[in-house]
Amino acid sequence: MQFLSDNAARVHPRVWQAMQAADAPDAPYDGDALSRRLDAVFADLFGRDCAVVWAGTGTAANCLALATLVQPHGGVICHRESHIEMDEGGAPGFYLHGAKLLLAEGAGAKLSVAAVEQVLAGITRGVHQVQAHAISVTQASEYGQAYTPDELRALGALAANRGLGLHMDGARFANAVAFLGCSPAEAAGPVDALSFGFTKNGGMDAEVIVFFDPAKADLARWRRKRAGHLHSKGRFMAAQVVALLEGGLWLELAGHANALAAEVAWGASERLVYRPQANEVFARLTAAERAALRAQGFAFYDWDEACVRFVTAWDTREEDARALSRALAAL
Amino acid sequence: MQFLSDNAARVHPRVWQAMQAADAPDAPYDGDALSRRLDAVFADLFGRDCAVVWAGTGTAANCLALATLVQPHGGVICHRESHIEMDEGGAPGFYLHGAKLLLAEGAGAKLSVAAVEQVLAGITRGVHQVQAHAISVTQASEYGQAYTPDELRALGALAANRGLGLHMDGARFANAVAFLGCSPAEAAGPVDALSFGFTKNGGMDAEVIVFFDPAKADLARWRRKRAGHLHSKGRFMAAQVVALLEGGLWLELAGHANALAAEVAWGASERLVYRPQANEVFARLTAAERAALRAQGFAFYDWDEACVRFVTAWDTREEDARALSRALAAL
Amino acid sequence: MQFLSDNAARVHPRVWQAMQAADAPDAPYDGDALSRRLDAVFADLFGRDCAVVWAGTGTAANCLALATLVQPHGGVICHRESHIEMDEGGAPGFYLHGAKLLLAEGAGAKLSVAAVEQVLAGITRGVHQVQAHAISVTQASEYGQAYTPDELRALGALAANRGLGLHMDGARFANAVAFLGCSPAEAAGPVDALSFGFTKNGGMDAEVIVFFDPAKADLARWRRKRAGHLHSKGRFMAAQVVALLEGGLWLELAGHANALAAEVAWGASERLVYRPQANEVFARLTAAERAALRAQGFAFYDWDEACVRFVTAWDTREEDARALSRALAAL
Amino acid sequence: MQFLSDNAARVHPRVWQAMQAADAPDAPYDGDALSRRLDAVFADLFGRDCAVVWAGTGTAANCLALATLVQPHGGVICHRESHIEMDEGGAPGFYLHGAKLLLAEGAGAKLSVAAVEQVLAGITRGVHQVQAHAISVTQASEYGQAYTPDELRALGALAANRGLGLHMDGARFANAVAFLGCSPAEAAGPVDALSFGFTKNGGMDAEVIVFFDPAKADLARWRRKRAGHLHSKGRFMAAQVVALLEGGLWLELAGHANALAAEVAWGASERLVYRPQANEVFARLTAAERAALRAQGFAFYDWDEACVRFVTAWDTREEDARALSRALAAL
Repeated sequence: MQFLSDNAARVHPRVWQAMQAADAPDAPYDGDALSRRLDAVFADLFGRDCAVVWAGTGTAANCLALATLVQPHGGVICHRESHIEMDEGGAPGFYLHGAKLLLAEGAGAKLSVAAVEQVLAGITRGVHQVQAHAISVTQASEYGQAYTPDELRALGALAANRGLGLHMDGARFANAVAFLGCSPAEAAGPVDALSFGFTKNGGMDAEVIVFFDPAKADLARWRRKRAGHLHSKGRFMAAQVVALLEGGLWLELAGHANALAAEVAWGASERLVYRPQANEVFARLTAAERAALRAQGFAFYDWDEACVRFVTAWDTREEDARALSRALAAL
Repeated sequence: MQFLSDNAARVHPRVWQAMQAADAPDAPYDGDALSRRLDAVFADLFGRDCAVVWAGTGTAANCLALATLVQPHGGVICHRESHIEMDEGGAPGFYLHGAKLLLAEGAGAKLSVAAVEQVLAGITRGVHQVQAHAISVTQASEYGQAYTPDELRALGALAANRGLGLHMDGARFANAVAFLGCSPAEAAGPVDALSFGFTKNGGMDAEVIVFFDPAKADLARWRRKRAGHLHSKGRFMAAQVVALLEGGLWLELAGHANALAAEVAWGASERLVYRPQANEVFARLTAAERAALRAQGFAFYDWDEACVRFVTAWDTREEDARALSRALAAL
Repeated sequence: MQFLSDNAARVHPRVWQAMQAADAPDAPYDGDALSRRLDAVFADLFGRDCAVVWAGTGTAANCLALATLVQPHGGVICHRESHIEMDEGGAPGFYLHGAKLLLAEGAGAKLSVAAVEQVLAGITRGVHQVQAHAISVTQASEYGQAYTPDELRALGALAANRGLGLHMDGARFANAVAFLGCSPAEAAGPVDALSFGFTKNGGMDAEVIVFFDPAKADLARWRRKRAGHLHSKGRFMAAQVVALLEGGLWLELAGHANALAAEVAWGASERLVYRPQANEVFARLTAAERAALRAQGFAFYDWDEACVRFVTAWDTREEDARALSRALAAL
Repeated sequence: MQFLSDNAARVHPRVWQAMQAADAPDAPYDGDALSRRLDAVFADLFGRDCAVVWAGTGTAANCLALATLVQPHGGVICHRESHIEMDEGGAPGFYLHGAKLLLAEGAGAKLSVAAVEQVLAGITRGVHQVQAHAISVTQASEYGQAYTPDELRALGALAANRGLGLHMDGARFANAVAFLGCSPAEAAGPVDALSFGFTKNGGMDAEVIVFFDPAKADLARWRRKRAGHLHSKGRFMAAQVVALLEGGLWLELAGHANALAAEVAWGASERLVYRPQANEVFARLTAAERAALRAQGFAFYDWDEACVRFVTAWDTREEDARALSRALAAL
């Protein structure tokens, strides 16, 4: 009973079908029919024009997006526990040519206007200090917390006032949308670039960057090739994305994962670090309790000494989530 | 009848099967059972210890390999028409942090000892000039020409004498081995790192770098994550590679493509720029002749004003190759 | 009465004389007689072999030194308030090709073994997290605090155990040596590379990096040229350094600055944030007190809301320091 | 009798005086009175608004200038024998974060419109190939050849049509102006950024970048600090520049060097590779002839097997130039 992560979950059957249907000769790279449909597909989803660039990993999507917003001598304000800071092996430093991550605090690994302003207030020495060029938020956050449309509007206004770009790491964007119950456009807010993840949500290896400014997408295309991320058979990546968007499959799968996280959280209600707003549950457990759960066959991640993380995925079985919930309650 | 490139060819049925068989929970990244088998699989193939790192594109494989051999202030001696110089959108400059490609001449886009020595002879100004740190050869070359084991030994001796790393871009390594009729070890020669391509030869998006020095593989693993190329579901990449190696499928598919290139070349014998040693045919055709062929339904690439390029793939149909050969002969 | 910084102080008369004496034809770059003497001069000073590379600024010296110890995918453990983190405009990100500064806490902007170990303890995710490759300490620290030989030995042992390089930013190394009253070798401890500053201490624009491993100096020479820091008339830089070392002038000048800082500190004894161990005094002053001092003609830097910084230099006049001391005492 | 290079020549007495006059407390970095005068001083010289950034070496000036015109994924069209390609130790790769030098041919190391267009014509593969973002010319060229105002206008028109930046490496701009007898504005032509050298022409270590677009100068200031080129006592650099511009000293010194090069050329008239248009003479000499000259006490650089280079400087003595001229004539 696996609750370690959603990042290695199975590939959805409809994704397999779409990939196999794409196994016919077509133009290489992103010149194929499926890749060429993406702009329109996402424009429909977001209700506004956009330009879409696919990439094979979330790290690549995040960093290619940021590289359109940040110059090498600049910085990105992000949360101290964000994925780009903690889990991407220094990829932002590589893709942004030495630009810096400027770390902000905030409960639930979410940025607030106040936290961003505090970082900005500390940058006072002109050329002697790295200046912020962009803000990066994670929807949902590392702790499975969602930004509300209002929170995003406030951060967007701050970004606009200070001339900063706004990026959203949406590795679990689907889970945030499913939780918020709002439109994708509202869940994205006024971002310049959204890394929209499909790999954790039924795909094999497909993420897209949605740019609301086409010039930035052009820039990302040069950088994507230069980073070795322009797959020659890109049609298989586009096929995954199209299959997951079709008929709202992406939202259905994310909803399933969220529901099971809620189920797990129910059993851990006394122990929750945060009330789950996506597909992650952080629960305070002692070493003995962890051992007890593992003895019952549950796999999960030791977040730190205080708490563990349970992640549900599109393919998590209801009976497993229920069993975990009961086991947590019984501790 | 498509002879444009092998880079967007279909995925082999056995590869599909292997990928679907891999669609069960396993460790993320390269911790899965299939990825962990790769070192042993390639050690068998090459008859010596090696450490293997997968990547999703040839550009990534080449550049990650080179980054283990070249420091940012160094350079790579390569052919003026090599893929890393002409077709990777500046990826070497990105991955090597500004290191330089030092261009050598040579018929058939192959490097000779003399050509490399000429480049080295031009580097005389100490710190004022970028020094060579490595040599990169392409097996088979951009013109579908194969290096013989003797040629590789000579280049390897030169590299060793001068303290240079030796890298092989093997995007079409299978085709070279099939042509040479030697062992993979002989076709690789004394290289430090081999980018061994599977995408053009029945795979979907799978290349590996074979390192004969494990320390270099370690280094490549750090750099791979940092470049956003560490797929979370890496088992699907490893599955492709294992499927293609099993039972020598890789060699069989490359042999098929080579045979059809020979078929095409037979019809163009008076027009050949090079005698094909892999799956590419370069033929001198006038604009009128090109138009005539296209009118008959053949798709191919205008290499330059003098010649065109026909590429066969593992899935090229014999009847198409025969038809093209006849059409060429009839011009 | 200027106490803003020592960074724009005058050039010592003996430095002027030495520079003018160097104004005769000699080999360009670092091939001149003076540059070629530096290795021997510093070997004498440190009582062990070393290889010395000059550079025109402290930022360049620090970053060229670190680039020999840290790979692009690695990181440098340094204090949250160190110069490389706060005041070099992102130069480490540039010179180290995106490597990361890993920030540690510590009173007086000094690193302790415990603080470094805490940073190391937080790096647990393998390739997903940037690993430390080096530690950088500042002697004297941003708050004018000196590391004792024992403290350096402990940090050196930790670095050795963990396979980390050890760098010292010695922009005010002279002041630290003058305070500690020990040998330069003891004040440097077991560092791999020391950025030894002369600009703030009577020079015009001369810093050196002292490498105790000649291979690292070789590497720094390639990188220095590549960074545009190989001055063609390097003899003028070497002349400054030689003049300041001759007869212990460097130590005499630093001693003077330290003594005047002590004088200033005497007047501010109730207000000191740290007891000065170099030529900087940090004192708690209200806005009204700052205004009062400025009205009396004293120039100084508002460090933050709590305190101000007074810096003395080799050319600070005793009467000015005394006046400031009295003014502080009278507040 | 030294004709090796002008790069290590003496410092002019008026430069010494100006530097010593600047040895009084002033604001650090480029906040001092002299640095703040530079914009106006160069606006006078060029008859149009400009923003000026100093740097300590020509390599830094060239690369900081180019970094404002070229993105990391782009390229710079330059001559195969230009300084940025041959003599800067890979600095463009470093400062431009991996951008590429795109090499053009041309007699006298000068670029023509046709040569640039030929490079552009070879860039046809979209994201797969590095695109040109700028053109860099050298005034005077590596072979001491000057671009006429007409030639620069033509290159400027091409750059504008193709959306390319235009940079001029003016390490010997003074010599070109002195030769052309036109205004500095005409000798610079429609460049976006001019690296204007003073080090070879009486300075110690002072170059400036003249930007005709202030936004680019702002960008260069961030990059300069980040590259460790923001000297804390920048007033000494500005002092050099101001002293050399005052009363046209720069042009007088360059005129002297040019005249002595003409004197040398006179004696070598049968052997000239190019008719000198600055302060360099390239002459065909056999090994025996070289040895004979050296035996007479002349020092010079072996350019290649065919020819040698003689360089005159502001401090070359007339009698030495005359002696060399006679010795050449007598060969």
